[in-house]
Amino acid sequence: MTDTTPVAADARTAHRLARAALSRLAEPQDVVAGALIAVAGPVDALRVATGAVRSGPRLERAVADQLGRHDDGPALVAAAVQRWAARVPALAPERDLTVLDRLGGWLLTPEDEAWPAGLADLGPEAPLCLWGRGQPADALPATARAVAVVGARDSTAYGEAISADLAHGLVSAGCTVVSGGAFGIDAQAHRGALAAHGSRSARDAANRAAGPAMPTVAVMACGVDRFYPAAHETLLRAVLAEGCLLAEVPPGSSPTRWRFLQRNRLIAALSGVTVVVEARWRSGALNTAHHAAGLGREVGAVPGSVHASTSAGCHRLLRESDAVCVTDVEDVLALLDPFRLPALPAAGQAGRDPDESTSVGPPGNHPPGVALPVRSAPPAAHDGLSAQDLILYDALPMRTGSTTARLASVAGLSEPMVRAGLGRLSLRGLAVTMNGSWRKGGATRG
Amino acid sequence: MTDTTPVAADARTAHRLARAALSRLAEPQDVVAGALIAVAGPVDALRVATGAVRSGPRLERAVADQLGRHDDGPALVAAAVQRWAARVPALAPERDLTVLDRLGGWLLTPEDEAWPAGLADLGPEAPLCLWGRGQPADALPATARAVAVVGARDSTAYGEAISADLAHGLVSAGCTVVSGGAFGIDAQAHRGALAAHGSRSARDAANRAAGPAMPTVAVMACGVDRFYPAAHETLLRAVLAEGCLLAEVPPGSSPTRWRFLQRNRLIAALSGVTVVVEARWRSGALNTAHHAAGLGREVGAVPGSVHASTSAGCHRLLRESDAVCVTDVEDVLALLDPFRLPALPAAGQAGRDPDESTSVGPPGNHPPGVALPVRSAPPAAHDGLSAQDLILYDALPMRTGSTTARLASVAGLSEPMVRAGLGRLSLRGLAVTMNGSWRKGGATRG
Repeated sequence: MTDTTPVAADARTAHRLARAALSRLAEPQDVVAGALIAVAGPVDALRVATGAVRSGPRLERAVADQLGRHDDGPALVAAAVQRWAARVPALAPERDLTVLDRLGGWLLTPEDEAWPAGLADLGPEAPLCLWGRGQPADALPATARAVAVVGARDSTAYGEAISADLAHGLVSAGCTVVSGGAFGIDAQAHRGALAAHGSRSARDAANRAAGPAMPTVAVMACGVDRFYPAAHETLLRAVLAEGCLLAEVPPGSSPTRWRFLQRNRLIAALSGVTVVVEARWRSGALNTAHHAAGLGREVGAVPGSVHASTSAGCHRLLRESDAVCVTDVEDVLALLDPFRLPALPAAGQAGRDPDESTSVGPPGNHPPGVALPVRSAPPAAHDGLSAQDLILYDALPMRTGSTTARLASVAGLSEPMVRAGLGRLSLRGLAVTMNGSWRKGGATRG
Repeated sequence: MTDTTPVAADARTAHRLARAALSRLAEPQDVVAGALIAVAGPVDALRVATGAVRSGPRLERAVADQLGRHDDGPALVAAAVQRWAARVPALAPERDLTVLDRLGGWLLTPEDEAWPAGLADLGPEAPLCLWGRGQPADALPATARAVAVVGARDSTAYGEAISADLAHGLVSAGCTVVSGGAFGIDAQAHRGALAAHGSRSARDAANRAAGPAMPTVAVMACGVDRFYPAAHETLLRAVLAEGCLLAEVPPGSSPTRWRFLQRNRLIAALSGVTVVVEARWRSGALNTAHHAAGLGREVGAVPGSVHASTSAGCHRLLRESDAVCVTDVEDVLALLDPFRLPALPAAGQAGRDPDESTSVGPPGNHPPGVALPVRSAPPAAHDGLSAQDLILYDALPMRTGSTTARLASVAGLSEPMVRAGLGRLSLRGLAVTMNGSWRKGGATRG
C-alpha cells in the first residue's frame, strides 16, 4: 500500500480481480488454485485456470512441488483446469466487485495489510481472498484477540445462556467473537457480543473513535450478499452494522455442505481460541474444533449434563482431544493468553461458604447473568496448619476441656509437643484454656 | 501361609499383634512407624516404639536411610517414640482383636495373601495393617477391578443419580465400588453397587458360589466397630453384609479431620480408577483425586452444569489436572482398561437422528436408568463420499432435474468428472436420472 504510483495501482487492481475470479472458479480449499498463485502470481494463475494460457511441464512441476505431491503432481493442473472450465464462461469479477461495492463491502487479499495473519497457518488451504461486508476491514481483530464461539443449531436454553454470557464477557474484555451466523449457539454468540458492544460503546465513545476491533464477525458459507439462514436477516444486519460478514466465496454463491465444512476452517483460523458451547456426538462444531486443533490453536469445551445429548460432543472433545474444560469468560481468556493473571473476585462474590455442608439448589438452567460458582473460597480456620497441629486441633474438644496428658494420648503426640502445639493454636485463636483445661477456640467454624 | 508349623504360626501371631498395636500408636501416614517395621520387623519395631528397647544409632540411621531423610534422620525415631509414649499405657492389641472377632471382622497385614496389591504403591505411607469387617478379606477386589466413586456430601439429585448409575453399572460389569460411606455421592455409590449386586446374585447364584469380588467397600476414617456417620448405620450394615468396611485405625478410634484426609489416600490406592462425581471448588473428593493421580492412577471427573457450584471441583479437575471427562460406565471401564473395546450399542438405542436439526428437550436431572445420549449415530447417506462426490451431491437438485453441463458449473467440476461422479452416486442411490436430467436420489435424508 506504500507504492501508490499508477502502474503499481493498476497491478494491484489486476491482482485483486484475478483473485476474485479464481475464488469463483475454485471451491474452497482447492489447493491447486492456491499453489498456482504461489508459483505464477494471481494474474498468470488466472490465465492458466481459464485455459487462456496452457500450462507447461515446468509450471506443472512447480505446482506439484509447491503441494509436495511429486507423484500425481503433473496431472494436478490439467485436472483442475478441466474442472474449472465449466465456470469460466460466467466469470465476471468486475461485476462481482461492483455488487460488493453497492453493498458497502470490500475485497481483502493476502497482499492487504488488514489480511488476518492467522489465515497464513492454513498454508496451501488458505482462502484466495475474503469477501467482506460491514465495518472496514482494518477493524478486523488480531488472531490473539479473536475467539470463536460455536455450537449446535438445536441448542438448549442452557447452551444459549452460556453462549451469550461468554460472548458478552469476551467483548467486554476487548475481544472479538467469531461465529457462523447459524441458529442456536452461533446466533446467541453474535447477540451477546453485540449487546456488550452497545453498552461498551455507550460507556466510552472516545475509545470507539480510536477504532476498536469489531465486536463480532460472522463467517458465511455463502456469498455476503445473502443473509443465510433467511430468518437471521435482522441479526446479520445487526452484525454488519457493528462488525462484518466474511466469506471466501464470491457474491451469489449458495451455501453447500462442502462450503459449510470449509467455512469452519476459516472460523478456526481467524480465532486464537475456539470454544464449543454445545454439540452433539456428531456435530459441525466438532469439525471447527478439529480444524482449530490442527492449526495448533487452543480449543475450549463447555461441560454440561451427562444426560444432555446436546453436550455429548463437548464431553467427547474433553475426553478424546486436548480441548480444555471452560466454564466462564476467565477460563477462555486464560486460553487466549496463558500468562494472564486470573481476575480478582468481584466484591460480594467471595462471601459464600465453601464448606461441603452448605446446601445449594440443584444445577439447572440459570438465567444469564446469574452469579457463577465461587472459586476463591474464604480460608478455613485450620488452613495452613502443619499436619501435627491439625491432628492436635482435631483432638481438642469443642465444649468440655481436656488436659495436655489426655490430648497427648488422643492426638498421639508427646506432652511437650502438645504444649508447644497448643501455644501455636492459641496464638491463632484456635485453642483456649481455662484452669489448665483446653478446648477449641472461638475462631473455628467447625 | 504355606508354613503351618506351630513356631511359624506363633511368629505370625506375634507379627499381627505387633502391627495391630503399632496401628494404635501411630497416626495414619506416620512414616516412621512403617520405616521401623521395614528395618526391624514388626515385633522389634513395637519394642522400640513402646520404649521397651532403646533405639541405637545404627537403627536410627537405617530408619533415616529408609525414608531418604539423612539430615534430620537420627532424631526421627526419638521424636516418634516421644509422641507415641502417651498412647502406650492403653495398648491392648489382644483385646482389639477380640473386639474385632466378636464383630465378625478380620485383621489384614502385608504378609497376607489377601493384602491389596495396590497399597504397595503408597510406599512408606502404606497402612501398617487393615482392620476389616464384613465379607472375608479374600473377596477384596484386585486393584484393576476396583473403582473409587467419590464426591461431595452436599450432592444434588443430578450427582446422586449419576453416582448410583455408575456404581450399578460398574458392579454389573464385575467391578467393585470403593467409597467412603459419607453422605451424598458416597452413599449413592454404595447403594447403586448393592442394588446391582442383589440382581446379579439373583441371576447367577452359581457364580456367587465361586466367590466373586465384593460389590462395594467402605473405607472408614474411624474404627470399623463404629458406623459413621451414625445416620448411615443401616447403609453400612448393608455394605458389610455383601462387602466390607475397612480402616487402618483400630476399633474405638474416632474420625478426625486428619484421618479423613488419610482415609482418602487408601480409597485412591485400593482402586484402579477414581471417579469424582460432584465436588465443589474445594472438596475432600479432590483430595482423593490428587492422591490417585499421585499414585499414577487414572482419575475421571463427571461434568455438570457450569452454573452448579457442586460441579465446579469436577470442572477444575478437568482443566487443571489429567483427569478424564467421564459421562457413563463405558467411559469409566475404558479408564480401567484402555485396551477394552467399546460396548456395542444396545438394540433400539441407535435409532435416534444425529442431525443437528433434531430437537430435544433441555438438559436436566433425568431419573436414573434414562437412556443416555446416543453416541453411535446411524451413518448419513453421504458418509464416506470423497470431497468431489460430496460437492457434486450438494449440487444435485432435490426435485427438478439438472443437466451434466449445469452440474459441472454449479459443482465446479468438468463434465467427464460429473458423469463419473453421477455414476458413483447412482450406485449408492444418491443420484437418479430421468430423460438425461439428474436429481438427488431417494436414499438421501437431506
